Amino acid sequence: MEEIYDVAVIGGGPAGVAAAIYTSRKQLKTIFLTDTIGGQSVGSSGIENWIGVESLSGIELAKALEKHLRAQENINIQTSQRVSKLESTQNGVTIETEKGDTIKAQTAIITTGGRHRHLGVPGEEEFSGKGVVFCATCDAPFFRDKTVAVVGGGNSGLEAVVDLFPFAKKIYLIVLGDTLKGDPITQEEVKASEKVEIIYGANTTKILGEKMVTGLEYEEIPSDEKIKKTLDVDGVFVQIGSVPNTEFAKNLVETNDFGEIVINHKSGETSQPGVFAAGDATDTPYKQNNIAAGDAVKAALSAYDYVLKKRREQK
Amino acid sequence: MEEIYDVAVIGGGPAGVAAAIYTSRKQLKTIFLTDTIGGQSVGSSGIENWIGVESLSGIELAKALEKHLRAQENINIQTSQRVSKLESTQNGVTIETEKGDTIKAQTAIITTGGRHRHLGVPGEEEFSGKGVVFCATCDAPFFRDKTVAVVGGGNSGLEAVVDLFPFAKKIYLIVLGDTLKGDPITQEEVKASEKVEIIYGANTTKILGEKMVTGLEYEEIPSDEKIKKTLDVDGVFVQIGSVPNTEFAKNLVETNDFGEIVINHKSGETSQPGVFAAGDATDTPYKQNNIAAGDAVKAALSAYDYVLKKRREQK
Repeated sequence: MEEIYDVAVIGGGPAGVAAAIYTSRKQLKTIFLTDTIGGQSVGSSGIENWIGVESLSGIELAKALEKHLRAQENINIQTSQRVSKLESTQNGVTIETEKGDTIKAQTAIITTGGRHRHLGVPGEEEFSGKGVVFCATCDAPFFRDKTVAVVGGGNSGLEAVVDLFPFAKKIYLIVLGDTLKGDPITQEEVKASEKVEIIYGANTTKILGEKMVTGLEYEEIPSDEKIKKTLDVDGVFVQIGSVPNTEFAKNLVETNDFGEIVINHKSGETSQPGVFAAGDATDTPYKQNNIAAGDAVKAALSAYDYVLKKRREQK
Repeated sequence: MEEIYDVAVIGGGPAGVAAAIYTSRKQLKTIFLTDTIGGQSVGSSGIENWIGVESLSGIELAKALEKHLRAQENINIQTSQRVSKLESTQNGVTIETEKGDTIKAQTAIITTGGRHRHLGVPGEEEFSGKGVVFCATCDAPFFRDKTVAVVGGGNSGLEAVVDLFPFAKKIYLIVLGDTLKGDPITQEEVKASEKVEIIYGANTTKILGEKMVTGLEYEEIPSDEKIKKTLDVDGVFVQIGSVPNTEFAKNLVETNDFGEIVINHKSGETSQPGVFAAGDATDTPYKQNNIAAGDAVKAALSAYDYVLKKRREQK
């Protein structure tokens, strides 16, 4: 007989790990499908806001999560598995993976997180976690008395500048277009700050560094001459938006204009009964590891209630 | 001039610590008021569901939280402080403590948690964490192939029995009255289980043990003879309800019939602008450490947004 899991957890960051630990402890037969374990923070050199740990690296967090996960029973842990399709069936959901596997489960918990948009320029990946920052809330406090470039003239760029106000001594705001976007009040505040120098029409072409970031290279646009200019900076905050990893689920669950899964924040329920979600893949306004883990526990316990209810109905 | 804090965090469990770490990292001037640091789990001998840590004791969790908290700046940490009153004022809130201190802050985050109702019988405190359990979700997996007594015939007692089904070999359900209360379907399920023996009209009088729990003593009611009976058990789940620690805030924020603070689960907002809440003091359906911490991060970031907004308005 074909194996049907009680729960399929899709995604391997703090939310996915939290969900699977809880469903396993509730003795639900769980399959855990992820590309890698650890989530987006893996690239961070220092995480100081994972509650209960003063400081750890992204890799240390990933290892701690994996160790905790692997200590559980009842979890079929499958890495290198990217889900390509999630569909509703009569008794639950059917999952297809890029590898070509088909998996059936009574419930699914989506915890696939998001990905920060990257610039795609030389130095960006090399110095990720070494001065290149994607989460401003997480890393602003590391830049006390430093000179920093924030790339991005929309809301997330503006918010990163505000996050840096109390710390950085000088902030370059690198804007591709010729105006700022986003919240007008924040725009005024950023423009009024003596710490901030806004460079409009600037296309970032390279992030410079040795062991750590030392500078940012950009070209002015429009420019026939394509003259490169260089700023000496200790950090580059890449703040050009984030994309939730929800493409595979969009036909099944309600998403908002940003592609985020709309959830009931009390229970983790999505618009599709039996499908739950938590973390950065959802419309939670703040994308933080602890929020992801906490909301995933809610989703797991809601999935447990759902499975129990179905079992009772079938009796 | 009188000192006014940006944020007063009231309560010192995982939620309070998480909130204060985040507000401090946002450079908000924070006061942290609690009786003790660590929350209700302090009594647990083994916590296996604090995400990222395979196993730790309640005291170890409390120490980790305290260490992380004390590593922050901008927090005025005050222990042995129990808040007796929280009132709204023109520019925020005024807090009075049992010691007689008065504290002013622009915002408050309430994270005072709850307290499990205790039986108040000999052995209960002595063997807390040594076989006496208050959180069934947390500790049911420790009782594999064990004989356990669950005290309480309402919903939380029934749910504890269901939590124990996959683990315990024998479950006595000790009920004070002559009927079960709570969800009828769960009642049927509990009654139908061969593992469960329900003892009605039983008033628990003592929890027996040496190093760990070895038994439960009860008397039958009504009974003129007050004959004590003893059950040999490895664990006693005290499931007679829980009370949120929200008395001091009831005049200010909306609470539900259970005394829990009604929150917006997306933001941590309460009915009172500038007052936020998270954790077991709220109407979150599942009382778990990670949920408390995650929701507290939401509350902290919402308080930060609130303070920034007020600062802008005052300009």
